[in-house]
Amino acid sequence: MNASTAMKVGPELSSVFDHIAKNNDKFVSRLLDYLRHPSISAQNVGMGEVVELLVSMLRKLGLEASAIPTAGYPVVMGRWERAPGAPTVLLYGHYDVQPPDPLEAWISPPFEPVIREERVYARGAGDNKGQHFAQILALESHLAVHGCLPCNVIILLEGEEEIGSPHIAEFVDAHRDLLKADLVVTADGPLHESGRPIITYGVRGIVAFELRARAARSDVHSGNFGGLAPNPVWTLVHLLATMKNTEGNITIDGFYDDVGAPTELERTAAARLPLTAEDIQRALGLAKLDNPTDLPLADRLMFRPTLTINGLHGGYGGPGSKTIVPHEAFAKCDARLVERQDPEDILRKIEAHVKNHAPDVEFIRIESTPPSKTRLDAPFSKAIQSALQIAHGVEPLIYPSLGATLPDYVFTKILGTPSFVVPYANADEANHAPNENIKICCFLNGVRTGAALLDALGGSPR
Amino acid sequence: MNASTAMKVGPELSSVFDHIAKNNDKFVSRLLDYLRHPSISAQNVGMGEVVELLVSMLRKLGLEASAIPTAGYPVVMGRWERAPGAPTVLLYGHYDVQPPDPLEAWISPPFEPVIREERVYARGAGDNKGQHFAQILALESHLAVHGCLPCNVIILLEGEEEIGSPHIAEFVDAHRDLLKADLVVTADGPLHESGRPIITYGVRGIVAFELRARAARSDVHSGNFGGLAPNPVWTLVHLLATMKNTEGNITIDGFYDDVGAPTELERTAAARLPLTAEDIQRALGLAKLDNPTDLPLADRLMFRPTLTINGLHGGYGGPGSKTIVPHEAFAKCDARLVERQDPEDILRKIEAHVKNHAPDVEFIRIESTPPSKTRLDAPFSKAIQSALQIAHGVEPLIYPSLGATLPDYVFTKILGTPSFVVPYANADEANHAPNENIKICCFLNGVRTGAALLDALGGSPR
Ligand SMILES: [Zn+2]
Ligand SMILES: [Zn+2]
Repeated sequence: MNASTAMKVGPELSSVFDHIAKNNDKFVSRLLDYLRHPSISAQNVGMGEVVELLVSMLRKLGLEASAIPTAGYPVVMGRWERAPGAPTVLLYGHYDVQPPDPLEAWISPPFEPVIREERVYARGAGDNKGQHFAQILALESHLAVHGCLPCNVIILLEGEEEIGSPHIAEFVDAHRDLLKADLVVTADGPLHESGRPIITYGVRGIVAFELRARAARSDVHSGNFGGLAPNPVWTLVHLLATMKNTEGNITIDGFYDDVGAPTELERTAAARLPLTAEDIQRALGLAKLDNPTDLPLADRLMFRPTLTINGLHGGYGGPGSKTIVPHEAFAKCDARLVERQDPEDILRKIEAHVKNHAPDVEFIRIESTPPSKTRLDAPFSKAIQSALQIAHGVEPLIYPSLGATLPDYVFTKILGTPSFVVPYANADEANHAPNENIKICCFLNGVRTGAALLDALGGSPR
Repeated sequence: MNASTAMKVGPELSSVFDHIAKNNDKFVSRLLDYLRHPSISAQNVGMGEVVELLVSMLRKLGLEASAIPTAGYPVVMGRWERAPGAPTVLLYGHYDVQPPDPLEAWISPPFEPVIREERVYARGAGDNKGQHFAQILALESHLAVHGCLPCNVIILLEGEEEIGSPHIAEFVDAHRDLLKADLVVTADGPLHESGRPIITYGVRGIVAFELRARAARSDVHSGNFGGLAPNPVWTLVHLLATMKNTEGNITIDGFYDDVGAPTELERTAAARLPLTAEDIQRALGLAKLDNPTDLPLADRLMFRPTLTINGLHGGYGGPGSKTIVPHEAFAKCDARLVERQDPEDILRKIEAHVKNHAPDVEFIRIESTPPSKTRLDAPFSKAIQSALQIAHGVEPLIYPSLGATLPDYVFTKILGTPSFVVPYANADEANHAPNENIKICCFLNGVRTGAALLDALGGSPR
């Protein structure tokens, strides 16, 4: 199979593609309608309205649909299970969006979608309304043309992804019966910057924590108390320096214990990715990459954990100098975890390290999400690859893992279901930023991809 | 000599003390008048007016007085040299004050002096108008009673002390002929918190600098680029950790090269100071002091240099977490230097260390002032001690060195003149802070101290 080879499209999918082509304008205009409804989970704006809208949208297609309450915002579910013997795919997406601030940076208002230069601009255009709406339109197109779907489908739309999915694990655990599927497909995130489609087989986990050091009651004069009053900034500097060395290795006891080697398939896939230090350096404006420069890029991006200081603040930060000994300082950090690393275990190890090296420093847990991983040779992997090849006319890039923040582990770890992330949005979608957008061609190719996926799964043995 | 023994006051000084006692109320009311005139060097407020006021004040006493221009604000000088054979004392002070911000924290406005609970509240009350005005009133009192002074006097009032004395070295170097004196006395800073008088024989020097690290063009996502994009906060953490170790020792090559041992006199004087770790801990609310805890407190306060991080800032500092790799970070630091350490040499050594350990980090010099040191057995040392004993009725505390920021080195290093710092203000004067104040008893005792000082010097052989 060559990157530029188009695959043969069967007659059933071909007529669905025709239907999509005829309805391009209508689909885009219905996307604008959907984007007009804000649903900002962090600010509790418009959530109920969008839940109702989605449930009625799914019912209109003939799906059994409902909003299922959680301790937070409801989960919208829809199901079509009239293809006995065919596999069942669970399509995950999220209907909540990021807050649109800073508003003044938007060229057009975030909830008044407009088309400029072949892109739809609006909050949620890429992340994630434009993508799960494309999935829904793929279902609609199959149903419109054939009156049925090639496989069974469960739709699960979460309302709390942008606030860290605090209730999705609980929900999935409590509703295993509703979520029995052969595979999970998530349309979220961006395509490769070249426009090539991507399949991601895992998401690194994360733990985030804060270190807080305090000393004197208030800042004191460095001439009178320098070297006498403990300096919380020095405390954090010395502590952090024991946690990662200049070679880039994390020096917390046991941190790498559960890091496995990538499989041969993963290594081969990673080696085929168009991933060069030069590209990254150019994109970020860097003279060089960070240590350890002796590891392959793919290892560092996918197969190894990281420890990052997200921010460190203490003492004077204004112009010129202020000769004080600061009385408090804090550092916020995150660690990206790879498969088999357990966030709880890692947090315990970090905390033990802190207690050991700087017993007076407070350790505060902020966040933790386990990693997820699906085998490259998992069932339906080939079906998804061929669907992407058909919809895009180009072979997809295979990412064994990426650093997103999707709660993918709830499918792989809680349900034990293989899970694939198949993004539809352009690489410059500006998600979480002002002027979020989706290219119209990406959106429509998303609908085609969704349709091809259902078709490919329908032709796959369970 | 015992701490509580009063010394015998000669008849000439006794009549000056009587004059001061009779004029207490007038002196305080004239201090209020002086404090009503703002003279904020950092904001160029009222400087010219206060210069004129001082020149005419000194001329009224019969001094030869003038304002001598500098590249910044003028230096006010006054001289009385009609005591041939007697020593000449140069009295240093500064007529500029700190900006009064934050204004809302003042109980009464900073330039509308008021008396509350036996204190005068106003910007400059302690730092330094109240103190050099007390010196001037001491001269006035001697002149009023005796028509002459017991020794020769040069008054030097700087207008840029609160902005780092940028032109005083140049001024002193260019006007050596006008500044020929046997000793320098500076009334600035606070008495001991017990109220006991202090003589300080040196001021530690200072260098201040900033370290700036930059990497990517902007903050990037830690999931996508953690461990790939160099992290400027980690860069500073690792660099700073090589500059001082957890034992509190500065680990910059050659940093301690020119640090001499204290003299036997200095060691003895330091050992007599009422200085305990417990007092400092209680005052600052500390559970313990910083390393190196095995060195005597006096060594750490007076005889050893320090390296302090005044502030370190980089990356996210808001609530919760933001999983970024920061693209820039900076640290502001100061080092306090002891006698024989040369700021230029130290800055070169620090810069070389930075270039060696983190070549991409920018090193920015902010400030440098050499240390000063006067021998404990310098001429006139005993005269000053006995003047303080007479004015306060208690033996002064002898500080071989302190961590102030006075440009004392211009006298000891440029002129080669012994220099003594003899503070008049209360320990809680709140200089540089809202509600700056001077206790009326401290102010009046300052006038008495100044008078006793002139008397003691008059009786000392040149
Ligand atoms: Zn998002
Ligand atoms: Zn000051």
